[in-house]
Order: sequence, then C-alpha cells, then structure tokens
Amino acid sequence: MDSNRLEEVLMRNVESLSLSSEQERRMLPRGTGRYPSVKTLKEIMGLIKALIFPAFFDSRYTNRHLRAFSIGVNLEKLFSLLSTEIRRALRFDCNIENPDCPECFKNISNSAEELTLKFIERISEIKRLLYTDAEAMYDNDPAAGSYAEVIMSYPVMQAMIHYRTAHVLKELGVPVLPRVISELAHSATGIDIHPGATIGEYFAIDHGTGVVIGETSIIGNHVTIYQGVTLGAKNFTLDDDGRPVDVPRHPILEDNVTVYSNASILGRITIGRNSIIGGNVWLTHSVPADSKILQR
Amino acid sequence: MDSNRLEEVLMRNVESLSLSSEQERRMLPRGTGRYPSVKTLKEIMGLIKALIFPAFFDSRYTNRHLRAFSIGVNLEKLFSLLSTEIRRALRFDCNIENPDCPECFKNISNSAEELTLKFIERISEIKRLLYTDAEAMYDNDPAAGSYAEVIMSYPVMQAMIHYRTAHVLKELGVPVLPRVISELAHSATGIDIHPGATIGEYFAIDHGTGVVIGETSIIGNHVTIYQGVTLGAKNFTLDDDGRPVDVPRHPILEDNVTVYSNASILGRITIGRNSIIGGNVWLTHSVPADSKILQR
Amino acid sequence: MDSNRLEEVLMRNVESLSLSSEQERRMLPRGTGRYPSVKTLKEIMGLIKALIFPAFFDSRYTNRHLRAFSIGVNLEKLFSLLSTEIRRALRFDCNIENPDCPECFKNISNSAEELTLKFIERISEIKRLLYTDAEAMYDNDPAAGSYAEVIMSYPVMQAMIHYRTAHVLKELGVPVLPRVISELAHSATGIDIHPGATIGEYFAIDHGTGVVIGETSIIGNHVTIYQGVTLGAKNFTLDDDGRPVDVPRHPILEDNVTVYSNASILGRITIGRNSIIGGNVWLTHSVPADSKILQR
Amino acid sequence: MDSNRLEEVLMRNVESLSLSSEQERRMLPRGTGRYPSVKTLKEIMGLIKALIFPAFFDSRYTNRHLRAFSIGVNLEKLFSLLSTEIRRALRFDCNIENPDCPECFKNISNSAEELTLKFIERISEIKRLLYTDAEAMYDNDPAAGSYAEVIMSYPVMQAMIHYRTAHVLKELGVPVLPRVISELAHSATGIDIHPGATIGEYFAIDHGTGVVIGETSIIGNHVTIYQGVTLGAKNFTLDDDGRPVDVPRHPILEDNVTVYSNASILGRITIGRNSIIGGNVWLTHSVPADSKILQR
Amino acid sequence: MDSNRLEEVLMRNVESLSLSSEQERRMLPRGTGRYPSVKTLKEIMGLIKALIFPAFFDSRYTNRHLRAFSIGVNLEKLFSLLSTEIRRALRFDCNIENPDCPECFKNISNSAEELTLKFIERISEIKRLLYTDAEAMYDNDPAAGSYAEVIMSYPVMQAMIHYRTAHVLKELGVPVLPRVISELAHSATGIDIHPGATIGEYFAIDHGTGVVIGETSIIGNHVTIYQGVTLGAKNFTLDDDGRPVDVPRHPILEDNVTVYSNASILGRITIGRNSIIGGNVWLTHSVPADSKILQR
Amino acid sequence: MDSNRLEEVLMRNVESLSLSSEQERRMLPRGTGRYPSVKTLKEIMGLIKALIFPAFFDSRYTNRHLRAFSIGVNLEKLFSLLSTEIRRALRFDCNIENPDCPECFKNISNSAEELTLKFIERISEIKRLLYTDAEAMYDNDPAAGSYAEVIMSYPVMQAMIHYRTAHVLKELGVPVLPRVISELAHSATGIDIHPGATIGEYFAIDHGTGVVIGETSIIGNHVTIYQGVTLGAKNFTLDDDGRPVDVPRHPILEDNVTVYSNASILGRITIGRNSIIGGNVWLTHSVPADSKILQR
Repeated sequence: MDSNRLEEVLMRNVESLSLSSEQERRMLPRGTGRYPSVKTLKEIMGLIKALIFPAFFDSRYTNRHLRAFSIGVNLEKLFSLLSTEIRRALRFDCNIENPDCPECFKNISNSAEELTLKFIERISEIKRLLYTDAEAMYDNDPAAGSYAEVIMSYPVMQAMIHYRTAHVLKELGVPVLPRVISELAHSATGIDIHPGATIGEYFAIDHGTGVVIGETSIIGNHVTIYQGVTLGAKNFTLDDDGRPVDVPRHPILEDNVTVYSNASILGRITIGRNSIIGGNVWLTHSVPADSKILQR
Repeated sequence: MDSNRLEEVLMRNVESLSLSSEQERRMLPRGTGRYPSVKTLKEIMGLIKALIFPAFFDSRYTNRHLRAFSIGVNLEKLFSLLSTEIRRALRFDCNIENPDCPECFKNISNSAEELTLKFIERISEIKRLLYTDAEAMYDNDPAAGSYAEVIMSYPVMQAMIHYRTAHVLKELGVPVLPRVISELAHSATGIDIHPGATIGEYFAIDHGTGVVIGETSIIGNHVTIYQGVTLGAKNFTLDDDGRPVDVPRHPILEDNVTVYSNASILGRITIGRNSIIGGNVWLTHSVPADSKILQR
Repeated sequence: MDSNRLEEVLMRNVESLSLSSEQERRMLPRGTGRYPSVKTLKEIMGLIKALIFPAFFDSRYTNRHLRAFSIGVNLEKLFSLLSTEIRRALRFDCNIENPDCPECFKNISNSAEELTLKFIERISEIKRLLYTDAEAMYDNDPAAGSYAEVIMSYPVMQAMIHYRTAHVLKELGVPVLPRVISELAHSATGIDIHPGATIGEYFAIDHGTGVVIGETSIIGNHVTIYQGVTLGAKNFTLDDDGRPVDVPRHPILEDNVTVYSNASILGRITIGRNSIIGGNVWLTHSVPADSKILQR
Repeated sequence: MDSNRLEEVLMRNVESLSLSSEQERRMLPRGTGRYPSVKTLKEIMGLIKALIFPAFFDSRYTNRHLRAFSIGVNLEKLFSLLSTEIRRALRFDCNIENPDCPECFKNISNSAEELTLKFIERISEIKRLLYTDAEAMYDNDPAAGSYAEVIMSYPVMQAMIHYRTAHVLKELGVPVLPRVISELAHSATGIDIHPGATIGEYFAIDHGTGVVIGETSIIGNHVTIYQGVTLGAKNFTLDDDGRPVDVPRHPILEDNVTVYSNASILGRITIGRNSIIGGNVWLTHSVPADSKILQR
Repeated sequence: MDSNRLEEVLMRNVESLSLSSEQERRMLPRGTGRYPSVKTLKEIMGLIKALIFPAFFDSRYTNRHLRAFSIGVNLEKLFSLLSTEIRRALRFDCNIENPDCPECFKNISNSAEELTLKFIERISEIKRLLYTDAEAMYDNDPAAGSYAEVIMSYPVMQAMIHYRTAHVLKELGVPVLPRVISELAHSATGIDIHPGATIGEYFAIDHGTGVVIGETSIIGNHVTIYQGVTLGAKNFTLDDDGRPVDVPRHPILEDNVTVYSNASILGRITIGRNSIIGGNVWLTHSVPADSKILQR
Repeated sequence: MDSNRLEEVLMRNVESLSLSSEQERRMLPRGTGRYPSVKTLKEIMGLIKALIFPAFFDSRYTNRHLRAFSIGVNLEKLFSLLSTEIRRALRFDCNIENPDCPECFKNISNSAEELTLKFIERISEIKRLLYTDAEAMYDNDPAAGSYAEVIMSYPVMQAMIHYRTAHVLKELGVPVLPRVISELAHSATGIDIHPGATIGEYFAIDHGTGVVIGETSIIGNHVTIYQGVTLGAKNFTLDDDGRPVDVPRHPILEDNVTVYSNASILGRITIGRNSIIGGNVWLTHSVPADSKILQR
C-alpha cells in the first residue's frame, strides 16, 4: 500500500480523535489526576476473595499457623491498592478551583486511608455473611455436591462477594467504586445486584442468570430467589429536568420469602414474611405474610 | 502407573485425534493460512476502547496535548492488527484453486489494508454515537451516579462498543469478524446484538442481561429497552435444503420507543414512534405511533 | 497517616481473619492437601478445545502431518494437569484418619491417573458429538455466516464443550470437577447446563442467555431450544433434615423437540418426539409426540 | 514431615530474620519511603535505548512520520518513571527530622521533576555521542559486518549507553541512580565504567570483558582500548578514619590514544595524545605525546 | 515453499533428533524424574535476597512490624521451592534398581525437607556474613556513595549472595544445586567462586570481573582482592583413568591479605596474614606474614 | 510542576529526537522492513538448547517415545521463527531500487526458508559436537560433579551452544544473525568467540571469563584453554580508506594444545600439536609440535 496514503489517513484521524467534542467534555469528570482503574479493582476483589475464603482462593494457603503470614501480606496489599483507588475516586469529581493544591491532596489522601481502614474493620462481618450465603445456596440446591462446589464455582457466590463488598463501600460513602465493583460481577455472572440494595443473611439465588435487584430493594434473612427474577421499579418520579429521581422505588422482601424463576416484583411494595411468589408472576402490589402467589 | 500403558494410550489417541472425520473436513473453511484470532480481536477491541474513551481506558492517558502521541501509537497498532485479521478473514473461505499464489495474496493484502483505512475513517462517527448512548444510559438510570460509572462499568456499554464496531465492519463487507466481535460481547455481557442490526443514536439498555436484538432489526433514535427483551424472528422461511433463509424477519422500532423487561417482539412488524411496550408482553403484530401495550 | 494506627488496625484484623469460625470449619472439606485449582481447570479446558478444534483454537496449528506433534504435546499436558486435579478432587473430602499416609496417596494417585486415561479414551467421542452440535447450531441459525463463526464465537459452543467434558468426568465418578467446569461455562455464557444432564447429538441452543438445564434432564437427538428456556424441577422432595433430595425431577425431551424462548418446562414430565413448545409457555405436564403447545 | 516441626522452625526463623542487627540498622539509608527500584531502572534504560536507536530497539518502529508518536509516548513514560526514581533517590538519605512532612515531599517532587526535564534536554547530545561511538567501534573492528551488528549486539554499546546516561545524571547531581545504572551494565557486560569518568567522542572498546575505567579517569576523543584494560588508582589517600578519600586518582588519556589488551594504567598520570600502550603493559608514570610503550 | 518438502525435512529431523546417541545416553543422569530447574533456582535466589536485604529486594517491604508477614510468606515459599529442588537433586543420580518405588521416594522427600529446614536455620548466619561483606566493599571503595549502592548494584554482592548460599548447601551435602547456583552468579557477574571454597567475614572484591576462586581455596577474614585475580591450581594429580583428582590444590589466604588486579596465585600455598600481593604478580610459592610481593 | 512547561519540554524534545542526523541516516541499513529482533533470537536459542539437551532444557521433557512430540513442536516453531529472522536479515541491507516489490519479497522468502531447512539439517551435527565439548569440560575439571552440572550451568556451555549455532549460520551465508547470536553469549558469559572461528571437537574452556577467540582462528580437536586467554590479531592491514581489512590474522592451534590462563597468542601463527602455553605468556611467533612455553 502507498505509504504516503497510509500516513495521511492515520495523521488526519489522530488529529480528529484527539479533539474532544463539546459532548465528550461535558461527560468527563471535573477532577484531574488518574481515574480509578478497573484492572486494579479486579485485583482488589481477588485479594478480598483470598482473605475470606483462603482455602479456595489463596494460592499460598497452607496450614493454620502459617496462614496468618499470607493474610497479613494480602491485607497490606489491599490497604495499599484500595486506598489508592479510593483517593482517585474522591478526586474524581472534585470541583475545587485548583485541585492540584497539595493541601487538598493531603486531605483526600488521609481521608482515603481512613476509609480504607474502616472498610478493613468490616471484612470480618462480610466474611460471616458470605459463609451464611454459601450455606443457604448449598442447602437450597439438591444438585450441590459440597460446600466447596458452591464457594469455588457458583457464579452467584461471585455476585454476592462483589455485592457485599460494594455495599459496605457505599455505606462508607465511597463514590464511583461500589457501582464499578458490582457491575464487574454483573458482567461476569449476568446477576445485577445494585450496591445500594440491603440484603440480610442466608441469602440464596439459584442459577441466577438475569436476576436484577434494584438500588432501593430491602431483603430480609433466609430469602431465596431463582433465575430471571426482577426486583425492579414500577415507574419513575421525574425531576424538573425530566431525569428520574433516586427515591425508594424497589420492593421489600421480608424474611423467608421465596421467589421462583422469572417473576417480576415491581415498585415499593412489601412481600410479607414466609410468602412464596411463583414463576413468571408479575407483581406490583404488596402481599401479606404467608402469601402464595402463582401465575394465573 | 505403568509407563508403557501410558505411552500406548497417549500414542493411540494422538493418532485418532489427528484424523479428521468427513464431517470435520466438511466444516473447515476452504481457505488456507491461519484463521482470525479471537485473542487478537480482543486486543483490537481494547485499542478501540482506548481510542474512543481515552480518559477511562487508555492507561497512558495524560493531558490533552500529549494525548495525541498515545492516540497515534494506538491507531498505528490498530492498523497493523486489524489489517492482519481482515486479511485472514478474506482468505478464510477463498476457494481459488491455488490460494498460495502471491498474486492472490497481494490482492487480498491490499484490500485488507484498504478496508482497515476505511474503518479508521469511521471511528470518529462511532465515537460520536457511543457518547450519545452513554448519555442515554445515564439519563435513563436513576441509580447512575455519574457518566463515568456508565462508561467504565456498565456491561451494556461494552455491548454497544462491540456492536457499533462490528456493524461498521459488516457494512464494509468484512467477513467473519463482525459476528465474532459481537459474540465476544454477548459472552461477556449476556446481551446479544447481531452486527447486522441497525441502531440509531441515544440508545439505552437498562440491566441488559438476556436482551436479544436480531440481525435485521431496525431501531430508531432515543429508544430504550430493558433486560430480557427479545427483538426476534417469528418464524423462518426455509430454502429448498430446509435451511432458514436470511431475509428481513425482525422488528422495526421507530424513534422514542420504550420496551420494558422480558417483552418479546417477534417478526417483521413495526412499533410506531413514542410507543411503550410493557414488561413480559408477547407481541407479533405492528402497532401505530403512541401505542401503549401492556400485558393483559 | 499515623503509622502506629495503621499497624494496629492491620495486626488486629489479620488476627481476626486468621481465626476460623465454627461455621467456616464445618464447611471446609475434610481432606487435606491443596484443593483443585479453578485456574488450572481453565487451562485444561483450553487444551481440550485445542485438541477438538485445532484449526480454531490450537495456536500451533499448521498442516495435517505436523499437527500430530501439537496434538501429542497437548495430550501429554492434559494428562499431567488433569491427573493432578483429579487426585486433588479425590482427596478433597477423604475422611481417612491420617490422609497423609503414603499408601493412601499412592492409591489415589494411581486411581487419578487411571481416570485420566479413561477420560482421554473418550475425547474422540466428545469431539464427534461437538461437531454434530456445531452443525446443528449452524443449520438452525439464518444469521450464521459459516461453521467457523459458530465454532469460534458462539457462547453456546463454549457451553457445550464444557458440558460434554464435565458430563464424561461425572460419568467416570470424578468428584467436584464436573460441576466446577460447568459453572465456568455458566459464568462465561449465562447458559447453565448441569453436568448430570443427558443430551443427545445435534443439539442446538440459539442465543442462549438464561437457559437452565437441570441435573436429571434427559434430552434426545436433534433437539433445539432458545434463550431463557428452563428445564427445571417443579418441587423438591425433602429428606428428614429438610434438605432437598437428589432424585429425577427434571423433564425428558424426546428427539426433534423444539422449545422457544423463555418457556419453562418443570418437573419429571416427558415432551414427546417432534413436539414444539412455544415462547413463554409454562408447562408442568407431559405432552405426547407431535404436540404443539403455544401460550394462550 | 511432622507439620508441627515445620511450623516451629519457620516461625522461629521468621522471628530472627525480622530482627535487624545493629550493623544492619547502621547500613540502612536514613530516609523513609520506598527505595529506587532496579527493575524500573532497567525499564528506563530500555526506553532510552528505544529513543536513541529506534530502528533497532523500538518495537513500534515504523516510518519516519509516524515514529514521532512512539517517541512521544516513550518520552512521556520516561518522564514518569525517571522522575519517580529520582524522587526516591533524593529522599533516600535525607536526614530531616520528619521526612514525611508534605512540604519536604513537595520540594523533593518538584526538584525530581526539574532534574528529569534537565536530563531529557540532554538526550539529544547523548544520542549524538553514541552514534560517534558506534562508528568508532565499527571502524576499529575488521570483523564488524555492519553498523547494525555493532549497535544491536556489541556488549560495549550497552556499556556506553549506560555510561553516557549515568554520567549525565551524575553531572545533574542525582544521587545513587548513576552508579546503579552503570553497575547494571557492568554486570551484563563485564565492562566496568564508573559514571564519574569523563569520556570524549568516537570512543571504542574492542571485546571489552574485564575493562575497568575508574571514577576520575579523563579520556579524550578518538581513544581505543581493548579487553582487560584497567584505568585504575595506584594507591589510596586515607582519611582520618582510615577510609580511602575520593580524589583524582585515575589516568588521563589524551586524544587518539590506543591501549591494547590487559594493559594496566594506574594513578593520576597522563598518556599524551597519539600514544600507543601495548598489551599487558603495567604503567604507573606519565608518557609524552606519540609514545609507544611495549611490554619488555 | 513446497509444503511436502518442508514436511519431509522436519519429519526426518524430528526422528534423528529423537534418537539418543551412545554418548548422550552415557552423559544423562541415572535417576529418573524431572531434573532441577535453573529457572526455579533463580526464583529461590530472589527469595533469599529478599529475606536478607528486605529494604532493597523485597517489593512488599514496608515498616518493621508488618515486614514479618512478608518474611513469613517468603520463607514458606522458599521451603516449598527449595525442598522440591533438593528432592530432584537427590534423585538425580540415584542408581537404585527401581527408583520409582514409593519407599525410596518417601525417604528422599523426607530427607529433602530436613535438608531444607537445616538450610533455613542457617540463613541468619548467611545474612550476618553478607552485611560484613557489604561493609567491607564499601570501606574499600572510595567511589562508593553509600551502602545502598553497594548492596543494590555491585555485581560482587550478587556473587557473594550466591556463593554464601551455595557454600551452605554444599556443606549440608546437597548435590548438584550448589554448583548450579554459583555458576548462575559466574554467568551474571564474570566472578567465578566455587561453592567449595571457604571464605571468612568482611571479604571484599573490587570491580571483580575475571576473578576465579578455586574449589579448595581457604580465605581468612578481612581479605580484599581485585579484578582478574586467580586463586587457582598449579597442576593436577591425575587418577588411573587420567582424570584430574579433586584434592586440596588451591591457595590459603590468611587474614588481612590484599591481592591486586590480575595477580595469579596458584597451588596449595599459603599467603601469610597482612601480606600484599601486587598487580599482575604470578605466585606459586608460599609467603610469610606481612610479605609485600610486587611484579619485578 | 507547571504542566505547560512539561508539555513544552516534551514536545520540543520529541521533535528533536524524531529528526535523524546525517550520521544517523548513514548508519541505518539500506533495506526496509523490520530488522531482526534480538528478543526472537533469544527465543530461537532457547529452542535450540531444548532440541539438543532436552533432558535439561525442554520443560516438556518426559520419556523417550513421547519426547518426539515436543521435538516436533519445537522444530516447527524453530522453522517459523528462524525463517522470519533470516528473511529480515536478507532484506536488511538489500539495496534494490524498490525493495517492496513482491517479486523480491518472494525470492527472499523462499531463500530464507531454504536456508532455514539447511540449518535444520545440520542440528544433529551441532548436537554431536556439543556433547563432545561437554565431555571435554567435564574431563578437564576436577571440580565438576557430573555431566549435568556442566551442561546445565557452565557459562562456557552457553558460549559453545551459541558459537556452534552461529558458526553454521555463517557458513550458510546468513548475514547479521551469526554475530548477534555470538554477542548474546559474549554478553551473558564474558566469553567472546567470533562465529567465523573454526573449532574442532572435544573443546574445553575452564572458567572462561575474558576469553577472546578471533574471527579467523582455527582450533583443532581436544584443545583446552583457560580464563583470560586471547587468540587475537597482532596488527591490522589497513585498506585505502584506513579501515582494517578482514584477512586471516588470528592463530592456528593444532590438536591437543593447552593454553593456560591470561595467555595472549597474537597473529597468524601456528601452535603445533600437543603444545602447552603457560599462564600470562605473550606469544607472537609460531611454535612447533610438543612445545612447552612458560612465562620467563
């Protein structure tokens, strides 16, 4: 091929791709500095998995006494990586006049390190909850051969590890990262749990593909749901700009509720404790405790 | 284990696996040379993401002036990788008597480089459309905290980057690659958009898992669809060999249509502008503009 | 940040994370030694793909005669990796008093190597079946441009390669690994086929996201199903501990059955040969041959 | 092996290795923070080679116009990596009371970036000198087939690239890094040129192994030396602590001097221009211009 | 190129290269199983460097308390890797009739683990000696800017780390590995110290390239030598097969001896304490304490 | 740092580094296309080592029958990589008017493939010679514990593998690559053997650092040399441009010659069979058979 032609086309397109449209500029974060890195967040999730399920995901796993070394190393690494990502997230949309001022940088850094320590203080509780989830998945699935199969391989365990991590980060007020973390699991598993949702212990999802759990959902303890279930909004309240408002708009499932495959439960309604919602049901009103709703 | 036994079993199975069955031979491409590489196509998609959203996906991203260097390097790399893959795809099913003839090789190479330059000329337009999509996703989702969350993490953005790339390659007449690229996104996101579909600007998908958009679908501007929606064929026309024929068989959605979760819209029907199709609806006939179709 | 504070928090959490709760201990396998490695199982699946479809997945692929070298090397590597993983799986839940005794280790090692050779003897049959599946997918999909597109890129081919491998390992009595392998495909494709299911030849799934095929399902030859189809259990028999029992509880689909998108077929029922089940149908009773069941 | 014994030995040795002896503490730098990284310095040298000899060491090398993109990207990367290493080196031995104070950090960072820019301003001159060296090596070696062989493969070119880089960094006052860089080349090539030495243009070393060029050596233009040549100190001046003092103590070689293999030239003596020093000669006194000194 | 010709040549040469000549067979170790891995030995040396000089070579290095985690992890890894390599070395030349017998394997494994623990018990002493060496190198070199430069970058430190490790392994009776480890340093630095040599504390080598220290050399404390020095054998005692016998044949250097560049000291002679041997001296007879030998 | 200043400095230096000086242009090869890759040549040498000493360097090494698979795969890979590098080398300095013409490219490609096959035909002979070298090194070194230590770890074996490979390529007329390959070993081992030298079988070098064997040296069978030995030129014949001419100028060593450490043998002289040249000897005249030359 004529090498002048090649050069001309490449040079011209480099130029046009280097320009930012007005739309592009509007969508870029106001902050400066590097943005959080999806690749590093994946590495962080790998460390969290190794800390919580060392027998399965810590490649250095050996016996009980020596394990503390590996946990120590992993926790230090987690501190280092996560505090960096939180700092980036804090500066992400910071609209201070001169965000390069070292004062601001120092404040943000300290805050990022504080938030990271607060997260670390909560890993033990995340761990406790995830073991109850694993037990619930196992108890609920006649095809499960062992807890190990559940922990090592069920996509839904991935989804729950990401959700419970993202949820704590969101409670701590960390911006951006919680959603990125939960979408990593959404992409990998087809299970979409918003980090804002509240989910109790012993939570089981079977098969899982296509499950959607909306931002303001509240789920009690010992709840079980199946593939394709949507806990969604029925309709949106719009603000003056016509943009939907972020208000409680997803269902509340009380303890011991079961929802079978492909059911849609929409709006800020309450499903009373011990209720069973059948497959393919489309439900937009509250039901009392002990209800059994089947498709007509 | 008896090492003679091991050898015997391995040698015998090497032999049987080295033989091609009649069926296998029939299914292999007629062309020679290496086939397109899925791994390289993933690398190509990484370059395209970095070219279009440098702030989020270009690990070399710095300030505006210096960014052109990185764009230049990425565009050169894209030219090199993509022209190789297109050349492989062009030879893939080439049934010339002697496909090793240098004449043929030269023609295919030149053509591959031409097609690559034509693709490069269209990246700016792909970029413009993807920013409208990101804006639409953000506007449509009360749970979205920032454009950045949408671009960095929503699986549906991955799906749209792959779709819009694959669609342009298909329009340019490149064989094989468009489908492989779109299936990469299908696999990663659970969203299955055929590269042959036509999709306007400001297109939004929410949650997304299970969405299917068939090959001959036509979608206008400002359309929104939810998880589990199928834009499918109702039935197939079979050719004389009993194989389904590739004719227009998927729906047309005009501007501003919204389709809620798990709705199925099947066959070459038209959904008029501004219409709303409710969740779980099964629709096989056209509806006029401004329709509102809910599940009975 | 105060480095004493950092140290104190990290040290304290290392300690608490190093302790195993009673729940955690109960859920750990009784066996000792390393557990099977998900990373190695992915590498094993890569070798199997290269052995079965060398033209598409063997990066060393060249011409017919030389190909045997690469097949030999891949088969040796497969023997080495798979026998290690099977040995780990066999020791996984072994409750012998002193599992470190070399006698036990030797027995398990020999058995692992035997099982691996038995698996290797069956790869040719897995290969034959997968080519019939690829042909079925191609014949069934008007949007398929070539067999190559199907084999290289359709997620459902990934799902079938994993399923057919996992199914043979399960038939050979290998614990743990079959489910982990099939869940790898579930995660990657959104298609959930239990390794215990029985599936005949020329099996096609179109689009695929959200498909669930339960553990005791039996599927004949030339069956086709679409996205979102569930072949599930209707209800569970519970044992005395209230845990669901693993008995035949999923449907039987005879030859030439077609099931359209999002249909749910639940319970140990039989769908007679040549039947067609329409989209979104919810079916819990057997139907005779040549039935055509549509949504009301 | 008894796992209690293993634990006991490991735990005890972890403890003893974690303690710092008085000697170890005395030898550690006073500064805090991370130390310069040998691995990163190797990466930096790779970038410098690519910037100076792009045709041979820039894997992205293409044609003249597009090359600027790659040079831009490499220069940015160099700025980023080198300024980090210089900052670490500046803090390395900083004995300020509280080196964590942000004020100090800011000063050091700014200074590190300034020094890096100053280095970048001098790369063009380093480049010019290295091309004269390559030409000298080629002209001097009847066995050299092309300039390319010299540049790509002669260890002595490696030694000169490292020396000329380290020398400029030393002139700029950067601590620690110059010596580390020159020792990298010493290790890789067996040629030991101290970064403090002054070497003119068109400098040739043939074969090179065992060459030592001391810290205060001064070498003119068009000088040639052979393997095993030492330009060393004759004896040391000791300070009050008995430690040798760093004063001019190595030879001066004027223009056009040639020194044959294994000659030792020791002390602050001057070898006059155009002189020839024969192989194995042991020389500890100055010689006038045009001398020819052979072994007795 | 004619692909039949290519196949023919490759197939024929595969065959001839697969045959072992009588000579090749004679030179192969009698043992079976895998041989020690040079790559793993390099990894082991990296761990040892990190254990001994954590501030410089442990990429996880942070503060004092947390450092123990990293040391623990590194020591565990060292145990695992080194015991494997020692086991391979023990089986390397084992001429038992049936080396696959599990009894033999168990004995060798236990012995390998014991030897590894014994080595680990001695790392603290290796560490102490290496800090004295680093101090000696620093004190001896007016061009050394800091201890850090010496430890991080002097090739001779590499040589000493490898030598002191290899020497301990040799004392423990480990076959093969000591020599491989010392040759790794020989290759990397041009300094050839046989692991059998005995070297006291505060040992300094300056520049180093070309130094040879033979197998039976004995070197006291506070000895300094320069580049190109050979401590070699004068002549060999041959056995009945004409092969040189491994008897004491290299020099003894008592405390505080200095040997300047390129001196050769050959044979089982003794250099008395405080002696100085000048550059290029060729010495084959013992000299008393406080001697000063210069080249005539 | 002021980001405008940073941009300005980087932009200006990108520009100046992108310009080629007249000197730089003169030194670039006239050919176009990519240059041979040092990294690939290292990979090629790794393959050759694995083909010749599979027990030590082929990570896939198993038993005798299965080994042929790995040899086949390695030989194919060698063909592919080496023919590419030879093609690049052939075009390297090709001064045809339009080197992009496909005709020229085809000729060069065919020739590159032919040369590669010719090289492959000679690997068995290279292998035979290298086993004699390994035996000679072992027989000559009382400190060698086994053939395995020699083959796995002696730097001189590396030097000989590279030399014997480079020598055959040079005999085949391949430009550039032979010297690059031999300099790789020079750099790694401090042993500098020019690929043009002729060396018989059973060749031993002990210790090796600093050995130089010039381009036109001729060495018989069963020759042994020690560290620091130079087989060099005495003086150069200059051509009309004052550049040294490439004529026979290095020594001839007949069978069974031994040369001890640091001896220099210079000029086209002949050392008669069975002669012994002592350490540090400086020899510039021929000596008859059975001579014994010692330093005065």
